Amino acid sequence: MTYYNKCNSSKNEKSELYESSDFFVNFVLQNRTLSFKNDKTKMAKELKELTSRSENYSQWYNDLVLKADLAENSAVRGCMVIKPYGYAIWEKIQRQLDDMFKETGHVNAYFPLFIPKSFLSKEAAHVDGFAKECAVVTHYRLKNDPNGKGVIVDPDAKLEEELIVRPTSETIIWSTYRNWIQSYRDLPILCNQWANVVRWEMRTRLFLRTTEFLWQEGHTAHATKAEAVEETEKMLEVYAEFAETFMAMPVLKGVKTANERFAGALETYCIEALMQDGKALQAGTSHFLGQNFAKAFDVQFLDKEGKRDYVWATSWGVSTRLMGALIMSHSDDNGLVLPPKLAPYQVVIVPIFKTSEQLEEINQKVATIVSALKIQGISVKYDNSENRKPGWKFAQYELKGVPLRLAIGSRDLENNTVEVARRDTLTKETLSCDNLDVYLKQLLDDIQDNIYKKALDYRTSKTVYVDTYEEFKEKIEEGGFILAHWDGTSETEDKIKEETKATIRCIILGGDKTPGICMFSGKPSAQRVVFARSY
Amino acid sequence: MTYYNKCNSSKNEKSELYESSDFFVNFVLQNRTLSFKNDKTKMAKELKELTSRSENYSQWYNDLVLKADLAENSAVRGCMVIKPYGYAIWEKIQRQLDDMFKETGHVNAYFPLFIPKSFLSKEAAHVDGFAKECAVVTHYRLKNDPNGKGVIVDPDAKLEEELIVRPTSETIIWSTYRNWIQSYRDLPILCNQWANVVRWEMRTRLFLRTTEFLWQEGHTAHATKAEAVEETEKMLEVYAEFAETFMAMPVLKGVKTANERFAGALETYCIEALMQDGKALQAGTSHFLGQNFAKAFDVQFLDKEGKRDYVWATSWGVSTRLMGALIMSHSDDNGLVLPPKLAPYQVVIVPIFKTSEQLEEINQKVATIVSALKIQGISVKYDNSENRKPGWKFAQYELKGVPLRLAIGSRDLENNTVEVARRDTLTKETLSCDNLDVYLKQLLDDIQDNIYKKALDYRTSKTVYVDTYEEFKEKIEEGGFILAHWDGTSETEDKIKEETKATIRCIILGGDKTPGICMFSGKPSAQRVVFARSY
Repeated sequence: MTYYNKCNSSKNEKSELYESSDFFVNFVLQNRTLSFKNDKTKMAKELKELTSRSENYSQWYNDLVLKADLAENSAVRGCMVIKPYGYAIWEKIQRQLDDMFKETGHVNAYFPLFIPKSFLSKEAAHVDGFAKECAVVTHYRLKNDPNGKGVIVDPDAKLEEELIVRPTSETIIWSTYRNWIQSYRDLPILCNQWANVVRWEMRTRLFLRTTEFLWQEGHTAHATKAEAVEETEKMLEVYAEFAETFMAMPVLKGVKTANERFAGALETYCIEALMQDGKALQAGTSHFLGQNFAKAFDVQFLDKEGKRDYVWATSWGVSTRLMGALIMSHSDDNGLVLPPKLAPYQVVIVPIFKTSEQLEEINQKVATIVSALKIQGISVKYDNSENRKPGWKFAQYELKGVPLRLAIGSRDLENNTVEVARRDTLTKETLSCDNLDVYLKQLLDDIQDNIYKKALDYRTSKTVYVDTYEEFKEKIEEGGFILAHWDGTSETEDKIKEETKATIRCIILGGDKTPGICMFSGKPSAQRVVFARSY
Repeated sequence: MTYYNKCNSSKNEKSELYESSDFFVNFVLQNRTLSFKNDKTKMAKELKELTSRSENYSQWYNDLVLKADLAENSAVRGCMVIKPYGYAIWEKIQRQLDDMFKETGHVNAYFPLFIPKSFLSKEAAHVDGFAKECAVVTHYRLKNDPNGKGVIVDPDAKLEEELIVRPTSETIIWSTYRNWIQSYRDLPILCNQWANVVRWEMRTRLFLRTTEFLWQEGHTAHATKAEAVEETEKMLEVYAEFAETFMAMPVLKGVKTANERFAGALETYCIEALMQDGKALQAGTSHFLGQNFAKAFDVQFLDKEGKRDYVWATSWGVSTRLMGALIMSHSDDNGLVLPPKLAPYQVVIVPIFKTSEQLEEINQKVATIVSALKIQGISVKYDNSENRKPGWKFAQYELKGVPLRLAIGSRDLENNTVEVARRDTLTKETLSCDNLDVYLKQLLDDIQDNIYKKALDYRTSKTVYVDTYEEFKEKIEEGGFILAHWDGTSETEDKIKEETKATIRCIILGGDKTPGICMFSGKPSAQRVVFARSY
């Protein structure tokens, strides 16, 4: 774990100032019980050079992703490098989701990266949706430039049919399922794959919208429509449960309007989260594909009565975009705030010492703490590296969102105490080492609950009901979810989007079905829908 | 877990014959204590239509990969679909290796799929090695064919610089490391990534050589040559330990000759395994890259004395090729033989019943067995599906290499017994259910040891010392490893390869250093090296 430090790229010149003095250490030792949050925040901010959210939210996000060593832009336009600390969070997300997929009966498989161009064309809506953002492989060999300038594409190695780097895998998978399915006995097929996909985005942002991204895509095949719809809804529930329980991120569960549907789907279910700047973020989608892909690839089966029919399909996915959602849901001007359930380490321990004898004593004490915490299933990092001062470490782990920071010095050894700082509230308390493990386990649960509650309170405060278009145009500037009546037409939806940049995020599942009048057209509305500006 | 069945694509017409009679069930019930291995083997063979190894080894391999539902060819030339059962084994491999990488201080990260063409050219040997097998992305958009024939590549969306789908990631990673490394304090960097790579192979074989494959690639950066060499050797040890302990596959550890080195490496270490047809298979490589990539991408650092120097590099990888090695190391004419440590499920339980009352009784008994096995950490599948007969299930799980099969019928319930069949030896015994869990745990360990020993005995029997080229040419036809003297020149190596198709697999690390006379040229030889024909 100590490697995370080493892999840091943030080389902060200003931090040297603080490192070269013992100011911070003394300050910490002598003012343990005082609140020095303001000074420290100021100092940490300088150390980290993080733009504040109020100053420029978008810049804050970008700064944070870079400074917390989550990801960075690569030499390839629109493609990112996911750095070790960012990837460690993604691994936690993967592991948890994978367990949940398996608990619900799914298995993993792997399908090719490349899709023959002709496959994409087989489902009309699908190709319309993806053709404009495809990376296309046309050749399979390079050769030395006869003019001696490195290598060039070998014109003799042109592919007969171009290959598309998968933007999503429905087509290649359904062409495969065709050989797997003959009778109802072969159904359902419940496959998932963890993979990279490429969509040639013109404007990219780390994690939120990148040309290449990592994701999982589930692709299931069923004998009946009812079973496929049930699967679509089940996976939406899995996503919602994951978002709320593990990411501590409240989500609305709903269905998309026709405009916002996945290209090739009959119905797209989604979870929508609200970011701290009042913009919505689609965090996961689950599609009921009907028989569209089965028809496109002629996948039929014999049912129990011996009748032939097309197979029913679903697909569902979440991506590294969740990292962006996670960052923007909880983090603050001091850096990342991670929910304990997804933190690469939940507790970091920093020794405060002047001499190597002191360090040695602290090491021994910490060893017993660490082993007690591990027994409780708590992941812990002890950072006793000597090349960084405690002040730097404090700022660093705050920036990286470690839920709990323990500091322990010589006086603590005498008193059998430790200082415990919470990342979410930035509060500190001095605690006895007795039963510390049990206390911290509970504290981590409290933090998980607290940041969920905070996000939920925020969403509640930013969710309004609006009945007139005038009010809508006013409120949309403030951000948040707006529940308003809509006449159900794409035309109205398009005009509202054009005039306000707001889209219908979803029609909430099981939401209030009271009819009303469309705020825009004055026509009848079946129910309120959720509007917002979005990522 | 029952899903594996559902995702099977093997639809064997002949099996219907057996399913429609109770022959097999009765046979099993009445002849429990007799050996009916021969009949059963014959029957299973028909069921599975598996070519025997002696008949056609290559066909046997291909049949097995398909029939055991491990993988299949996709619609994209040279790219495979890894099916759920095959992928479950790969996941076991991944998880174990990943744990071992982390225990040795490595972290995961993710780098872009695409490599700008100019990057490949920066390291001369590297580009020579990979240019001829590169998938090249030249465009980023499709558009509707004006002639109405689906979609075509949009000529207006041509990339200024072509992108290569990574065949390996040294270049993109070292261009990134340049920004991560300034001083010795930033070193070492110990990153690994799990990724897909593409090498445009002309002749492909499932798992062994495919255009796209999955792998991990470690890329480390060090301040000193000694440290980089130590890392290279450490990772070779990790691979060897994994191969022997988990795959039950004995390997030779050695270094490659200059001819066989990775393109861009100063030294390539490898593990070499011997397959059942006497051909060698390179199962993993670990490269000492010297300062080649640091120089190509100008990655320098300030050492402790304030002197600038280029960074030292290693890279190391294993791929889905390990699946091929695993299959060919242990499997037999009845199907796959999996080492318990990598089997998706270690035990399968098949109930033998005629009435649903019998099944209900067996279900209850099995529930207690399953929970006892799970407490022992044994993964178990209970297949009480009613749409397949026991005979079909027996053949199926034998084909899929499940290490232990338990059969339980009504008489077993009366006697508190169960029939236990070992996949590796095809032997059966009837055992008391008392302490079954402890016994089976030990038995799984025994199987793991036994298949390793069997593979090792085979390798020993196929490893010979040869002193003359005449004898060499004779022995090479028999397959196996040949230890012979070689004069150390690429010229001799090339000629031997040309004449016999044998290559030098490796120079064994810590091997016998007794000098001798080259069998081919008669010139002095520093030591014997290992020759073989290979995959």
